[in-house]
Amino acid sequence: MLTINTDTILAQIQAALEKNDVNSALKVLEDLRTPDQAEVFYELEDDEKIALLPHLDPSVSADILEELEDEEVAELVSQLDSDSAVRILDEMDPDEAADFLGDVSREQAENYLAQMENPQEVRPLMIHADDSAGGLMTSEFIALRTRMRAGDAINVLRTYKPDSEEIYYLFVVDSEDVLSGVIGLRDLIISDPDVILGEIMDPQVVSVNAGTDQEECARIIAKYDLLALPVVDSSRRLIGVITVDDVIDVLEEETTEDFQRLGGAEPLDQSYLNTGTWMIAKKRIGWLLLLFLTGSLTGTVMRMFEAELAAVVALAYFIPLLIGTGGNAGSQTTSTIIRALAVGDMDVSDGLVSLWHELRVGLILGLGMSGFAFIRAITWGTTPQLAFAVAFSIIAIVIWANASGAVLPLLAARLKIDPTVVSGPVMSTLVDATGLFIYFTIAKSVIGV
Amino acid sequence: MLTINTDTILAQIQAALEKNDVNSALKVLEDLRTPDQAEVFYELEDDEKIALLPHLDPSVSADILEELEDEEVAELVSQLDSDSAVRILDEMDPDEAADFLGDVSREQAENYLAQMENPQEVRPLMIHADDSAGGLMTSEFIALRTRMRAGDAINVLRTYKPDSEEIYYLFVVDSEDVLSGVIGLRDLIISDPDVILGEIMDPQVVSVNAGTDQEECARIIAKYDLLALPVVDSSRRLIGVITVDDVIDVLEEETTEDFQRLGGAEPLDQSYLNTGTWMIAKKRIGWLLLLFLTGSLTGTVMRMFEAELAAVVALAYFIPLLIGTGGNAGSQTTSTIIRALAVGDMDVSDGLVSLWHELRVGLILGLGMSGFAFIRAITWGTTPQLAFAVAFSIIAIVIWANASGAVLPLLAARLKIDPTVVSGPVMSTLVDATGLFIYFTIAKSVIGV
Repeated sequence: MLTINTDTILAQIQAALEKNDVNSALKVLEDLRTPDQAEVFYELEDDEKIALLPHLDPSVSADILEELEDEEVAELVSQLDSDSAVRILDEMDPDEAADFLGDVSREQAENYLAQMENPQEVRPLMIHADDSAGGLMTSEFIALRTRMRAGDAINVLRTYKPDSEEIYYLFVVDSEDVLSGVIGLRDLIISDPDVILGEIMDPQVVSVNAGTDQEECARIIAKYDLLALPVVDSSRRLIGVITVDDVIDVLEEETTEDFQRLGGAEPLDQSYLNTGTWMIAKKRIGWLLLLFLTGSLTGTVMRMFEAELAAVVALAYFIPLLIGTGGNAGSQTTSTIIRALAVGDMDVSDGLVSLWHELRVGLILGLGMSGFAFIRAITWGTTPQLAFAVAFSIIAIVIWANASGAVLPLLAARLKIDPTVVSGPVMSTLVDATGLFIYFTIAKSVIGV
Repeated sequence: MLTINTDTILAQIQAALEKNDVNSALKVLEDLRTPDQAEVFYELEDDEKIALLPHLDPSVSADILEELEDEEVAELVSQLDSDSAVRILDEMDPDEAADFLGDVSREQAENYLAQMENPQEVRPLMIHADDSAGGLMTSEFIALRTRMRAGDAINVLRTYKPDSEEIYYLFVVDSEDVLSGVIGLRDLIISDPDVILGEIMDPQVVSVNAGTDQEECARIIAKYDLLALPVVDSSRRLIGVITVDDVIDVLEEETTEDFQRLGGAEPLDQSYLNTGTWMIAKKRIGWLLLLFLTGSLTGTVMRMFEAELAAVVALAYFIPLLIGTGGNAGSQTTSTIIRALAVGDMDVSDGLVSLWHELRVGLILGLGMSGFAFIRAITWGTTPQLAFAVAFSIIAIVIWANASGAVLPLLAARLKIDPTVVSGPVMSTLVDATGLFIYFTIAKSVIGV
């Protein structure tokens, strides 16, 4: 493929900027394709970005900014003079411009809107949440009429020359703007020019409402292999279109958030290397502290069994191993269940099925591990009674961890909480205190201390 | 949107099948759209699937099977008579048929190929790995010639009536079949019919080789917002096309695998509820056992400090809490770094940057946690010395966990190992033994036992 060497190009631009030769720097950047421009631009220092932005063609600036993250765009544009900012906003896709205007103060947004050429394209998009269909859709689309002839429709396309991403699915509306069907560009072309669209369109068109969550939109596009998904208002009037490239970005973004939540942290708003130390710490401290406080239950449990611990210090040797194994088993279960929920392989109503599934898996894993645990304990020179207690404990703890891992994400989902909150760290922490209780109780009755 | 009630439709089909009324069952299924057919079919019992498959129109069967998972398709088709199987295979997309034939025995595959109508479309695809561009691409595509006129190209499309997913990007090859450019259907339509394609095509076409990893293909399609990506051989001859809908499936599949690996388990080959107890246990036991064996180092560390533990039993109370917090901090870090690597926000060369980042984040988090740890220890009635030891330990352990979490995924990537192996459970286990060592060493010097 035709790849570019980002580092070489970056060096060229930075060398030119150091000599205050903005024009040469612009030339290098403008010769690239848009995604590459964005990639190179992203790597520049903030002051270099600000030096280039007002001198780029506003449409190029708009294309580049659309590829960057919302927070960064807001920060960059706020440093431009109002004139340059407005010229760039005019060139942005309405949905991207609306996203940006939602990220700055209300007065600032109104100030920009007052100077923009077509504020009426952007304003209606600003009422929708960023992560809803309304926030994701563009209002730049072509709607054809049911009574239009195929040949005339092609002429409309020739006249308006819409962007390529808007043309492959042509949505057809009736005289009330109600979404009535869809026709692929291919079908339009191979049709008799005199036939009316109402006859050749597919009336079974899948659509969403402006309030539909963006993940749900992504799932629908993936399921039906769509290139575009129409968005309708409560009267089924067509108000926007979501394209497949936006959905791929949504999938990537949601996966990134899920990864961070599964690791037991709040998702970062920007890319990792661009996020400051304090912000990262802020996104992590909450969970870390909550888990610490929950985890301090382990101390309470251990003090309940103070006498046994003092009598048999060897009991302590197995603590990290047993609760660690429980945490691992719980983490294995919960990450599988969370994903099965996310891709629709199962739903909340499958709770009993998955619980039964995991109880059996836990029994198999626990039995398997107990053999190793017994041998490990014996080779450490512990008494057979303690070795038996450890082996029994691992069976009970793994079953318990698997059962909790199966139930908790579903419980979260039922309570309308994102199931990814039941992360590995949450599972480990929950199994820590309960696992200790199981271990000491079993040890007490087996050893009889 | 027009949704279907899967449960109602499933009940209708199952009721019909119970009365041996295969035709009514077929009728219900055939009235649905393909993705819905697949969804309903997926929920049927195995014997019900086998009862329906041979009676469905082979093209409907093919469409449904293409939506199911490879392993399930292989199992279902192997239960059909050879004739029905071959008729369905003939109707499948060549890339899906090749995937299927790669999942059955070599003799079985040759047997099917011998009876198929167009084995030459499928056979070349079988040499590519399932997870490479070659395995993902379809060989059903239309290549136009550079010297062809726009008007003639449209006539070619009218004649061949290609599937909609093959038509939106038209790839242009020279007389040697070398990929020379791409032209969107939109640009073709709005062009003067007499102009030759070589003049209106975009010669800057992004392509991949057959061996390119499917995740890389997905990244390229996402970056350049493509609807289709051409696959070329070593002489840049066009051999296939990957479409965006395949890539969405790849992204979903890879994310599912990542989730399971991050939870510390091998990915399942099928959906969760369809995977048997033994198979789930098998996918988990390896990691669980490896982590158990590594985790048993904790016992070794504790026996090194046997005398101190016997002298101050209260030392043990803080073990789960300290190593748990270290594991959580490590898990937070590693999941962020793994994702930053996956989306290209950072690469292996950023190792020192991320290490420095995480050392500082670890210091902030450690200092923050140490206050709480001190108070918690004091309120449990431990001595001020032990409370200080716990507070110092948590700083050291969190910094250590963050540093390891920053370095290990990059180390894995450098060794060409999937960074997701550095899962939360792996981090917790590694921090367990080392964290204990840090804790006991600090405690020994502070308390002076």
